[in-house]
Amino acid sequence: MKSDIQIAQEAVMEPITEVAKRLDIREDELELYGKYKAKFSDELLERLKDEPDGKLVLVTAINPTPAGEGKTTTSVGLGQAFGKLGKKAVIALREPSLGPCFGIKGGAAGGGYAQVVPMEDLNLHFTGDFHAITSANNLLAALLDNHIQQGNELGIDPRQIIWKRCLDMNDRVLRNVVVGLGSKMDGMVREDHFVITVASEIMAVLCLADDMEDLKRRLGNIIVAYNFEGKPVTADDLHATGSMAALLKDALKPNLIQTLEHTPAIVHGGPFANIAHGCNSVRATKAALKLADIVVTEAGFGADLGAEKFLDIKCRKAGLKPDAVVLVATVRALKYNGGVPKENLSDENLEALKKGIVNLEKHIENVQKYHVPVVVTLNSFVSDTEAEVAYIENFCKERGCEFALSEVWEKGGEGGIALANKVLETLENKESHFAPIYEDSLSLEEKIETIAKEIYGADGVTYSPAAKKELKRITDMGMGHFPVCMAKTQYSLSDDPKKLGRPSGFTVNVREVYVSAGAEFVVAVNGSIMTMPGLPKKPAAFGIDVDANGTITGLF
Amino acid sequence: MKSDIQIAQEAVMEPITEVAKRLDIREDELELYGKYKAKFSDELLERLKDEPDGKLVLVTAINPTPAGEGKTTTSVGLGQAFGKLGKKAVIALREPSLGPCFGIKGGAAGGGYAQVVPMEDLNLHFTGDFHAITSANNLLAALLDNHIQQGNELGIDPRQIIWKRCLDMNDRVLRNVVVGLGSKMDGMVREDHFVITVASEIMAVLCLADDMEDLKRRLGNIIVAYNFEGKPVTADDLHATGSMAALLKDALKPNLIQTLEHTPAIVHGGPFANIAHGCNSVRATKAALKLADIVVTEAGFGADLGAEKFLDIKCRKAGLKPDAVVLVATVRALKYNGGVPKENLSDENLEALKKGIVNLEKHIENVQKYHVPVVVTLNSFVSDTEAEVAYIENFCKERGCEFALSEVWEKGGEGGIALANKVLETLENKESHFAPIYEDSLSLEEKIETIAKEIYGADGVTYSPAAKKELKRITDMGMGHFPVCMAKTQYSLSDDPKKLGRPSGFTVNVREVYVSAGAEFVVAVNGSIMTMPGLPKKPAAFGIDVDANGTITGLF
Repeated sequence: MKSDIQIAQEAVMEPITEVAKRLDIREDELELYGKYKAKFSDELLERLKDEPDGKLVLVTAINPTPAGEGKTTTSVGLGQAFGKLGKKAVIALREPSLGPCFGIKGGAAGGGYAQVVPMEDLNLHFTGDFHAITSANNLLAALLDNHIQQGNELGIDPRQIIWKRCLDMNDRVLRNVVVGLGSKMDGMVREDHFVITVASEIMAVLCLADDMEDLKRRLGNIIVAYNFEGKPVTADDLHATGSMAALLKDALKPNLIQTLEHTPAIVHGGPFANIAHGCNSVRATKAALKLADIVVTEAGFGADLGAEKFLDIKCRKAGLKPDAVVLVATVRALKYNGGVPKENLSDENLEALKKGIVNLEKHIENVQKYHVPVVVTLNSFVSDTEAEVAYIENFCKERGCEFALSEVWEKGGEGGIALANKVLETLENKESHFAPIYEDSLSLEEKIETIAKEIYGADGVTYSPAAKKELKRITDMGMGHFPVCMAKTQYSLSDDPKKLGRPSGFTVNVREVYVSAGAEFVVAVNGSIMTMPGLPKKPAAFGIDVDANGTITGLF
Repeated sequence: MKSDIQIAQEAVMEPITEVAKRLDIREDELELYGKYKAKFSDELLERLKDEPDGKLVLVTAINPTPAGEGKTTTSVGLGQAFGKLGKKAVIALREPSLGPCFGIKGGAAGGGYAQVVPMEDLNLHFTGDFHAITSANNLLAALLDNHIQQGNELGIDPRQIIWKRCLDMNDRVLRNVVVGLGSKMDGMVREDHFVITVASEIMAVLCLADDMEDLKRRLGNIIVAYNFEGKPVTADDLHATGSMAALLKDALKPNLIQTLEHTPAIVHGGPFANIAHGCNSVRATKAALKLADIVVTEAGFGADLGAEKFLDIKCRKAGLKPDAVVLVATVRALKYNGGVPKENLSDENLEALKKGIVNLEKHIENVQKYHVPVVVTLNSFVSDTEAEVAYIENFCKERGCEFALSEVWEKGGEGGIALANKVLETLENKESHFAPIYEDSLSLEEKIETIAKEIYGADGVTYSPAAKKELKRITDMGMGHFPVCMAKTQYSLSDDPKKLGRPSGFTVNVREVYVSAGAEFVVAVNGSIMTMPGLPKKPAAFGIDVDANGTITGLF
């Protein structure tokens, strides 16, 4: 069997100018990065402003399991299938993080015959967007510490510094560091932390910004610390906004690549799906809607985290209205949710399937609460049995959802035509009456409780004293109208990663709260969230190589 | 008066494909990065292999002073002047470091009407080469600490870790840090250090590598630490080579941009001119020689550091032979060397000039020791008087050098025609018999002493006990045949930055020695060398901005 990178490297790509031409984009409206990557110029985005919008389809999934679900693969394959059907479709995805490519996770370009290419470029530096974010993040940090070093006129309290440095690398020893050691000229000593670049607030800001002006406003509002009087100190206070924005000038422009079948793919931004909203950029999604009749996009993790944030943060803030949601599951993952260990997932087990399907059930109910039509798809595996598939299909139909098998991993767009047709039927026949699940005017506590009860199925919410205090401070600062970004384990609907299926009788504990004043949401942290991954004993890096001809191997 | 960035932004650039066409490069041999930047494809470099070489002209300078010399400006202007004269010339320069753009120094694209453009792109992310180096450097660091975390099979001694993390940012608090704090899962605690990216050994490796194979060999040889038995641990031992090389795949390809007058400029690599050799990449210089009749390149700092390393490290290693050296001075800098304070440099002062010109004299003598013809040029200022210029001209002629005024800052290529003609005369009439100043076969101590005595004018060299010990270890490891890379203050011919002019009666103290086994040179550190700059009280970052149209201001 061929590996993903082999399939990707065997693909004959079209020049990206040709892919763009099919979207009526002229070559001079692109900024080329080699032959197969391009950025949209500001002129193009300006020209598109008054075009009508296409339909927006969100791809999300059940809670992730070690069995794998294939959300990106499904998104790419669905886009390819629309292409096969002669539809003008565009895929809008997130850029993968560099660090995890060298760890366990690998890249994120889809899989099998449903991939975006050039896969190596996308997974490595791509067009440099994340490097620009790293630079802007660390410039702000350097300016902050330099301000303290040069006299600390703003009275920044070193014990209340929020801003962290970042690197796009899985590097556990940088989680907790002490900086500023040495002599007087080497800065003030303090504890500091590095996060992975996708966890930087600047990533979230870039993905939510409408344009350069909005980007600057948001960057300037970022709270980096509190002063000795407890008042917030912002990036604007440090005079950092202009140079950060200059560093992000090109990163703000959406990127265009293609699928294995030459479907246009706009791949832009990739905020952490936990402490941030985890969706591709607003600018990319909006441009995609202007360029195509159907836009397929995805959100991070399972629907409880990813879709909730897509709908309650991104759509709310950007004025987007999804027309349909595709919910991805696999027979294997549902059996895993029903208690089957990983090594036995290939055996037919209807009992376990019935036990585990409650996870899918809850996600269907959740999406329906937003009044958006749902299509469930099974990302098919050879081990799936007819009885298992039939059971799931019937289960979905009973709940008013369309259902389709997806074989895009094995067959590319051809394997997604059944799904594409179901989505088309849904778009034509079922109207979306999308509304977020809570109003801006609710208190932050009420918002958190709405998500916990309505989406997670919790009985209630408890707060640590620190979280309570911070919610009050944020509300007092006039930011109580922000939406809430829940940072919770992705593995369970609850805040306990071990509770699979559809847990009940639990409460959610909010341990920590802080405001991302640039991104304009309040992060509520449940449980412990890792914002700097580590490397395993045998990292993927060991297997990566490049030969004398520049051909890369070992990326996955 | 217009600022550099205003002049640069008013320039009407040619599409880079047009610039390339004049060098007989086809569009499909380029990898475009927008309309005005491109990388050379491997196919192009392969095709050029058997072309004859043009002439190589090195631009270097007297010791830098706060008065400013304008080495890059002269290099760019000289290239422009060759263009005016109808010559097929190419400029081969270093890429600027990002960090200092936000500090005091600003960027490095030349100045006035002798600049390379697009200036903002060049000074900010350019084609991502430095970001790739940062990533490769920090991947190696992460793999090293992960090896220790996962059991330390290689027995790495945490007290003897050589490898440092890096960022392309002026960030003093990262000079000395403690990493690995927290719990067992957060790594082993140890002292660590960050350097600025240009000081990473990977930067030097990239600039000296012939091709991908050579790059990998060098990367693999990098010594990251010593084990408990005192034996070196390399990047190969950590299985890091392949993935570092994959990260550097595109960074290894030279970049093409243009001057304000559309002269082709190959801008590639930029190693620290102190602990590394400070020249643009070997691949770029070699490609330039194949593409043009005359190649103008430059080296870091003054001739004692920059030209010495260009000649003794880069030319020796790459088999390059310079045909002429242009030595840049200014009347102001020579008067500063003669003891005039900065605020009085605009007044005519022949006495001070006579006193300070000994600095130029020593650099002329030094270059002549390499048997390469010298052309001295004065980068002209309005305050220069006729008598001062005449004195310098006569001084040079007495020493067998050609002399020309350069007015490229004010007049562009037109202002460099006199200089270009002198260089052409030199290339036609004076033969270069270039030879490095020392043989590979000398001991490391003998090499250090040769440089100290012959180039710096020292009486001798003293060594710290640690340096002595390390020289022995390096020789015992079989690396005694490497050239020596002297890390010394750039402000004086001696190792004391306050000794201007032509110091004598001093010895050089070698405080520290280490081997850059990937770059294949031995670094001898005299005095204290800063490898991570800081920000001043009012950093340049405060003045940088970008408007709604994407126009950047405040970069210099």
